[in-house]
Amino acid sequence: MYKSIGKISKKAGLSPGSLIYIGEERNEKTKITLFNYDEQSFQEKQIETVDECLSFKDSPAVTWINIDGLHQVEIVENIGQCFGLHPLLLEDILDTGHRPKMEDYGEYVHVILKMLFFDENSNNVVTEQISIILGSHYVLSFQEREGEIFNQLKERIRSGLGRVRKMGADYLFYALIDSIVDSYFVVLEKLGEKIELLEERLVTNPSPVTLKAIHKLKTGMIFLSKSVWPLREVISGLERGETPLIKEPTGIYLRDVYDHTIQVIDTLETYRDMITGMLDIYLTSINNKISEIMKVLTVITTIFIPLTFIAGVYGMNFEYMPELQWRWGYPAVLSVMIIIGVLMGFYFKRRKWL
Amino acid sequence: MYKSIGKISKKAGLSPGSLIYIGEERNEKTKITLFNYDEQSFQEKQIETVDECLSFKDSPAVTWINIDGLHQVEIVENIGQCFGLHPLLLEDILDTGHRPKMEDYGEYVHVILKMLFFDENSNNVVTEQISIILGSHYVLSFQEREGEIFNQLKERIRSGLGRVRKMGADYLFYALIDSIVDSYFVVLEKLGEKIELLEERLVTNPSPVTLKAIHKLKTGMIFLSKSVWPLREVISGLERGETPLIKEPTGIYLRDVYDHTIQVIDTLETYRDMITGMLDIYLTSINNKISEIMKVLTVITTIFIPLTFIAGVYGMNFEYMPELQWRWGYPAVLSVMIIIGVLMGFYFKRRKWL
Amino acid sequence: MYKSIGKISKKAGLSPGSLIYIGEERNEKTKITLFNYDEQSFQEKQIETVDECLSFKDSPAVTWINIDGLHQVEIVENIGQCFGLHPLLLEDILDTGHRPKMEDYGEYVHVILKMLFFDENSNNVVTEQISIILGSHYVLSFQEREGEIFNQLKERIRSGLGRVRKMGADYLFYALIDSIVDSYFVVLEKLGEKIELLEERLVTNPSPVTLKAIHKLKTGMIFLSKSVWPLREVISGLERGETPLIKEPTGIYLRDVYDHTIQVIDTLETYRDMITGMLDIYLTSINNKISEIMKVLTVITTIFIPLTFIAGVYGMNFEYMPELQWRWGYPAVLSVMIIIGVLMGFYFKRRKWL
Amino acid sequence: MYKSIGKISKKAGLSPGSLIYIGEERNEKTKITLFNYDEQSFQEKQIETVDECLSFKDSPAVTWINIDGLHQVEIVENIGQCFGLHPLLLEDILDTGHRPKMEDYGEYVHVILKMLFFDENSNNVVTEQISIILGSHYVLSFQEREGEIFNQLKERIRSGLGRVRKMGADYLFYALIDSIVDSYFVVLEKLGEKIELLEERLVTNPSPVTLKAIHKLKTGMIFLSKSVWPLREVISGLERGETPLIKEPTGIYLRDVYDHTIQVIDTLETYRDMITGMLDIYLTSINNKISEIMKVLTVITTIFIPLTFIAGVYGMNFEYMPELQWRWGYPAVLSVMIIIGVLMGFYFKRRKWL
Amino acid sequence: MYKSIGKISKKAGLSPGSLIYIGEERNEKTKITLFNYDEQSFQEKQIETVDECLSFKDSPAVTWINIDGLHQVEIVENIGQCFGLHPLLLEDILDTGHRPKMEDYGEYVHVILKMLFFDENSNNVVTEQISIILGSHYVLSFQEREGEIFNQLKERIRSGLGRVRKMGADYLFYALIDSIVDSYFVVLEKLGEKIELLEERLVTNPSPVTLKAIHKLKTGMIFLSKSVWPLREVISGLERGETPLIKEPTGIYLRDVYDHTIQVIDTLETYRDMITGMLDIYLTSINNKISEIMKVLTVITTIFIPLTFIAGVYGMNFEYMPELQWRWGYPAVLSVMIIIGVLMGFYFKRRKWL
Ligand SMILES: [Mg+2]
Ligand SMILES: [Mg+2]
Ligand SMILES: [Mg+2]
Ligand SMILES: [Mg+2]
Ligand SMILES: [Mg+2]
Ligand SMILES: [Mg+2]
Ligand SMILES: [Mg+2]
Ligand SMILES: [Mg+2]
Ligand SMILES: [Mg+2]
Ligand SMILES: [Mg+2]
Ligand SMILES: [Mg+2]
Ligand SMILES: [Mg+2]
Ligand SMILES: [Mg+2]
Ligand SMILES: [Mg+2]
Ligand SMILES: [Mg+2]
Ligand SMILES: [Mg+2]
Ligand SMILES: [Mg+2]
Ligand SMILES: [Mg+2]
Ligand SMILES: [Mg+2]
Ligand SMILES: [Mg+2]
Ligand SMILES: [Mg+2]
Ligand SMILES: [Mg+2]
Ligand SMILES: [Mg+2]
Ligand SMILES: [Mg+2]
Ligand SMILES: [Mg+2]
Ligand SMILES: [Mg+2]
Ligand SMILES: [Mg+2]
Ligand SMILES: [Mg+2]
Ligand SMILES: [Mg+2]
Ligand SMILES: [Mg+2]
Ligand SMILES: [Mg+2]
Repeated sequence: MYKSIGKISKKAGLSPGSLIYIGEERNEKTKITLFNYDEQSFQEKQIETVDECLSFKDSPAVTWINIDGLHQVEIVENIGQCFGLHPLLLEDILDTGHRPKMEDYGEYVHVILKMLFFDENSNNVVTEQISIILGSHYVLSFQEREGEIFNQLKERIRSGLGRVRKMGADYLFYALIDSIVDSYFVVLEKLGEKIELLEERLVTNPSPVTLKAIHKLKTGMIFLSKSVWPLREVISGLERGETPLIKEPTGIYLRDVYDHTIQVIDTLETYRDMITGMLDIYLTSINNKISEIMKVLTVITTIFIPLTFIAGVYGMNFEYMPELQWRWGYPAVLSVMIIIGVLMGFYFKRRKWL
Repeated sequence: MYKSIGKISKKAGLSPGSLIYIGEERNEKTKITLFNYDEQSFQEKQIETVDECLSFKDSPAVTWINIDGLHQVEIVENIGQCFGLHPLLLEDILDTGHRPKMEDYGEYVHVILKMLFFDENSNNVVTEQISIILGSHYVLSFQEREGEIFNQLKERIRSGLGRVRKMGADYLFYALIDSIVDSYFVVLEKLGEKIELLEERLVTNPSPVTLKAIHKLKTGMIFLSKSVWPLREVISGLERGETPLIKEPTGIYLRDVYDHTIQVIDTLETYRDMITGMLDIYLTSINNKISEIMKVLTVITTIFIPLTFIAGVYGMNFEYMPELQWRWGYPAVLSVMIIIGVLMGFYFKRRKWL
Repeated sequence: MYKSIGKISKKAGLSPGSLIYIGEERNEKTKITLFNYDEQSFQEKQIETVDECLSFKDSPAVTWINIDGLHQVEIVENIGQCFGLHPLLLEDILDTGHRPKMEDYGEYVHVILKMLFFDENSNNVVTEQISIILGSHYVLSFQEREGEIFNQLKERIRSGLGRVRKMGADYLFYALIDSIVDSYFVVLEKLGEKIELLEERLVTNPSPVTLKAIHKLKTGMIFLSKSVWPLREVISGLERGETPLIKEPTGIYLRDVYDHTIQVIDTLETYRDMITGMLDIYLTSINNKISEIMKVLTVITTIFIPLTFIAGVYGMNFEYMPELQWRWGYPAVLSVMIIIGVLMGFYFKRRKWL
Repeated sequence: MYKSIGKISKKAGLSPGSLIYIGEERNEKTKITLFNYDEQSFQEKQIETVDECLSFKDSPAVTWINIDGLHQVEIVENIGQCFGLHPLLLEDILDTGHRPKMEDYGEYVHVILKMLFFDENSNNVVTEQISIILGSHYVLSFQEREGEIFNQLKERIRSGLGRVRKMGADYLFYALIDSIVDSYFVVLEKLGEKIELLEERLVTNPSPVTLKAIHKLKTGMIFLSKSVWPLREVISGLERGETPLIKEPTGIYLRDVYDHTIQVIDTLETYRDMITGMLDIYLTSINNKISEIMKVLTVITTIFIPLTFIAGVYGMNFEYMPELQWRWGYPAVLSVMIIIGVLMGFYFKRRKWL
Repeated sequence: MYKSIGKISKKAGLSPGSLIYIGEERNEKTKITLFNYDEQSFQEKQIETVDECLSFKDSPAVTWINIDGLHQVEIVENIGQCFGLHPLLLEDILDTGHRPKMEDYGEYVHVILKMLFFDENSNNVVTEQISIILGSHYVLSFQEREGEIFNQLKERIRSGLGRVRKMGADYLFYALIDSIVDSYFVVLEKLGEKIELLEERLVTNPSPVTLKAIHKLKTGMIFLSKSVWPLREVISGLERGETPLIKEPTGIYLRDVYDHTIQVIDTLETYRDMITGMLDIYLTSINNKISEIMKVLTVITTIFIPLTFIAGVYGMNFEYMPELQWRWGYPAVLSVMIIIGVLMGFYFKRRKWL
């Protein structure tokens, strides 16, 4: 995040609509895939130059152009010109630190979402931005890099199974969003497992390492919330049906995604509450540990210091100390010491310090 | 919860409306019970195949079909087809981790609620999902497994006592919801008892075991809140009377359930506040304990260390130490030691450390 | 509270409108008092059977029936029948754990409020429920038991002083609510005194007993808030004048009660903030105490342990220890010890540990 | 505050509109000052009997009557009768613990505000209540006692400088409110200085005295917030221009006061956040101090206890201890002790405990 | 802030619209720069006397007058007269502690914003106020002193690149706001770096210095939030298009600034959450350190105190102590001591204290 803010800060003062890519630098070539289908026909092809899109632009069938890779800014620019997209919209596509939003441009609707992945290497949630544009007969989707989230959807389009081929561009638009929200549950599952693990460790063996893990998880959750919360508004904005681009039969499906969004937010909130509770438990258990150590220290000190004092007394070198000459002086003192020690032991037993 | 999220995550990418059961696997056969009644007539029967329902579908009397068990997905599917239910609604029925909601499909209204039970074995609140569908003359209810919550209601239908046989499907719909909300108070009572017990234990004998119990209760409360909070909106949605399926005389009864829902939420919130307060008290009492231990340690050390030092001085082996030859040296030193000890004792008494 | 939830839970599954008394069991006979008055005439009598009310029901003068005691359910039921009250309303009257609410039944308005008393024995706030029903020419009030809150109002009615005899049933209704809200200030005063007392004790002599008192006060405050918060909505609901039963001249008086309700809520909130602050101070002061004790321990140990070590060195029994034979060895060592002790003392003085 | 609640509680049960003064008892005579002016003429006089007001009541010029002192209840009552004020309004004027509010009575508007002063003696913020009533051609203001807040305004009226003489009663009404809100900044400045001072002391020399000062400031802030927060609503209520008594040109001036009110609230909130942060720092710094003390204790103990043990060993009186006869035994043991001590010192240096 | 409150407090009682400069005193001469342009023509000049503006006031081209320096109050006053600005608006321009706001005066719109800079010297965020006024063909901007934020915008105007020369005064108005909001990201980047640094230091080497840095950052964040939060309302107020001064094509650009404002607020909130988390970690890590120190102390004490006691016993001077005469007494006792020490070591190893 620090990084993305850093890069945005370099755009300060530029003319609005200046196209500058904010995300990670990449080397791969941008990949453009085109789908064109209706209930009967289906066509899928890799596109080299943006001009190839032009012929599909006014096709009455549904056209889906998916762009993987945003670092070749000129490609985004060309597609923008081809479909008549507003420069500010193109700027937003390239600003990969943008918060999720829905914006209605009249002729098309623009939605920015976050895709979430759990990265096993860094043991962290990674976010990637996706921009989806819905026009009357086309859908454009811009991803930071190639991913697998839409594979099952593509398969359904190819095979003609399910509802997608029978319905319009708005249903495809919905299906893309649904795929993304569905993938959130995979991430939530991972996070849930991590929390469960930490909770267990907190009970069996709390240590500063656990604390650091909890803290990291908590910080990660803060970022995650920011990626997911605005979604609520985005999808309810779509569902309320203010744009004529989304027809009525798709509305009920958006209501379903909305439900899932709420569930994701609810789960995240629950996780945050649980982590906060864990931090409190950790603090309390450290205090508990201090109290345990104190007990040991106090018991040992309290038992031996008086005894050592007695020994010190009879180690004094006064000439006239009658006890020292007594025949049973030594055993008597030893016995007194043992009795004092045992009594102290009982006392601490009763106070539950032993 | 981790588990239900885990299972939902496996649905990622599937076509919307794919019917997959999310809950626990079970072996029992799904049990379908049908009630058909009006003020004069009454009929109750166990149904084997869903087709038997068909004849009742258009009966002018009230038809209630209660399904216990969701693991046989095809049964849910068949009932769905029979009553013309939307595939997304069926998907929601099977998604037993769904949050409570009310959805108006025009011809029917769908309500998802949680049933709560206090499980004495796990010492925890267990939730089970129920879906209730209200049509013009029928009510469908889908439970995860057979339960006893509706027994008294069934009895009232059978015997014709109370208002239920005199009124329509909407009153039955209300009566089901009322039975569920009523059962929440049983769970609240159990929780209240547990809190009272823990509060007592906190006073008489605080220990890490108490802490763990408090923490577990707190976590449980977080989940519970998520099950109950949305109910407020669900029932006020029904009460506001936006659907013509619910007639005016039933409205006042829904207002009564609404009152009870608010009371449940209020009570839960009070419980949460109390538990939070208990955690603070626990932390403070540990600190108190540390302070008590410190006092003992300090008193003992402070009294004996100077005395031991004096003994050490007269244990030195210098040749020219006049005190050692004095006749009353030993008793004098002993007296000095006792005086110092007693003075210290008084000092600590005054500082309230003893 | 645990108790009232416990009793409500026993109603689970019963037909709505089942009349079951939730409150404490009592032995006294229910007392019914009837007032019938207009500007010229006035009549007050104790009623034995509910039937006596019937003749007053349609009197054009204002009729106020006050019922003290809810344990004789049949009396409530009879009055309900006499005045045509809805069974759910009667159920609410008997459910003494109900949260404050206002419900408009068209022909009459029902208000549930809490009366608060400070019980000097249990040192706690006790709540009692009152239901007030406003019809076109009558007011019914149901209390759990006889009390003194309305005494001054009754006197005003009897004597014809003030506005009450000149105005209608709605003004009487207001006057009852006003008497109740006025009585809250008496309770607030007691609570304020207790907080002031605890704050003082916190400064002069903090102890676990203080902590327990603070905690108890805090828990009590949570319950109190639940009794008072809903009042805001209740009274603003009445004031907004949605029911024609409340005429315009009374509106301004309800606005006055509303002001007082806000002041009660404000004061309660302030109290809660102050108690929270007190808990923080308590925790900090324990830590302070630990730090004080530690200082004493450390000073004593740090001064005497090196000295004791020196004494130990010269208590060793080596044959060749030249210092032991020196003529001024002993005084020299004593002087060294005193110098070390004094230097340490200065050091601790400078660090402000002494 | 405890006190004002106590006095309000004594009003319980009285007829609404009973005029009882809640504030401090005073001996001074109530002072009534009358201003009557328009652009050309100006008149100012001290009034002895309320009847003198009567002639000015219907004067087309602006009449401002300022009453200093509320303890002579009959004066307030007379003015109320003279200007036809509602008894509930008069009651509110005398209830000096009322929260700020704006109430529209149709023919006049009533505003209650708090005047704040920083009392250098008690080192605390003192609040005093003022009631301002705006009629078509008159303004009445009731203060608890004479003050200086309006001196500059009065001067402007006398001299005819500024806008006040050219405009109507509504502008005078605004100017009074503006003077009060302006005076809040004087108090905020004092509070800011106190916070700055405490923050500095927290860094240089934290002590329980500082804690008590912070706590007192925090409690004071809670009360202050209650005095200032409702102002927002009061002034935005006036600004929204719902009453025809306030003409359009004055609206823009009220918007300016509104800005200042927001700034006061903002500043107060910032102060509260800062004080909360200071409490956290204080708790942490106590823990820090404990940790520092512990280090000293541990270093001393850890260095000397092993050495004392060695000395103890060679202080044993066994007959056959060969080391004791060695010629260099004593220097050898001394050297070993020094080496151990130095090594320990290095060890603690490396752990940063020294 | 304390300072600006202090200065505002000096305005108490003055006539509204009194022009008094609240900010820092400066010596530089106020600099007035005038731009006059349309798509074809462009003119830029430094202005000496305000009268020079008059001729541009009614020019159909866009006129932008930028004033650097507010301490010469008469200049602000003259410009106010020249453009017919309301005295209250001028007062607000000079009140540099004003919170951001948008105010619509009908013929012109006034916006107050904060410019943020990160001052490397004081290691703190510095805020400066800017007032922007949009009229039908002119824009006025008042800054506290000359800065560089608008340099790139000026360059675009001079060169005719970008959209700015083709559009009206409203677009210039937007471009100024956009430049300011863009500059916030530079500050956020700096803050992000500081947080990252502190987070690292918290892990590697927590110290009271770190605490103070965190506390300072947190306090700074509180002020920052107050500068940025109101912006949301300001810009959404402009975007909602209530003023006809802002034409439709500019609306979409304001929506873009709005997005950035939200992102700034989001980032600030995230930062605050993170800092709060860091304070918790710090407190926990101090407790951890105490626990570590306690362990060392306890281990050393617990091992040596019993051994020292044994040595003390055999240092007693009783005549009849048979062990002392034994040939192997000394080595036997030494061995016992070593065994006890080793056993204790193992014990602490197992408890993980070593
Ligand atoms: Mg820009
Ligand atoms: Mg952008
Ligand atoms: Mg990214
Ligand atoms: Mg889905
Ligand atoms: Mg669904
Ligand atoms: Mg915390
Ligand atoms: Mg799906
Ligand atoms: Mg679903
Ligand atoms: Mg389940
Ligand atoms: Mg019920
Ligand atoms: Mg009820
Ligand atoms: Mg806590
Ligand atoms: Mg029931
Ligand atoms: Mg009830
Ligand atoms: Mg009761
Ligand atoms: Mg009252
Ligand atoms: Mg009043
Ligand atoms: Mg706390
Ligand atoms: Mg009263
Ligand atoms: Mg009153
Ligand atoms: Mg009052
Ligand atoms: Mg006062
Ligand atoms: Mg002002
Ligand atoms: Mg202003
Ligand atoms: Mg804290
Ligand atoms: Mg002023
Ligand atoms: Mg101003
Ligand atoms: Mg400044
Ligand atoms: Mg920008
Ligand atoms: Mg943008
Ligand atoms: Mg602590």
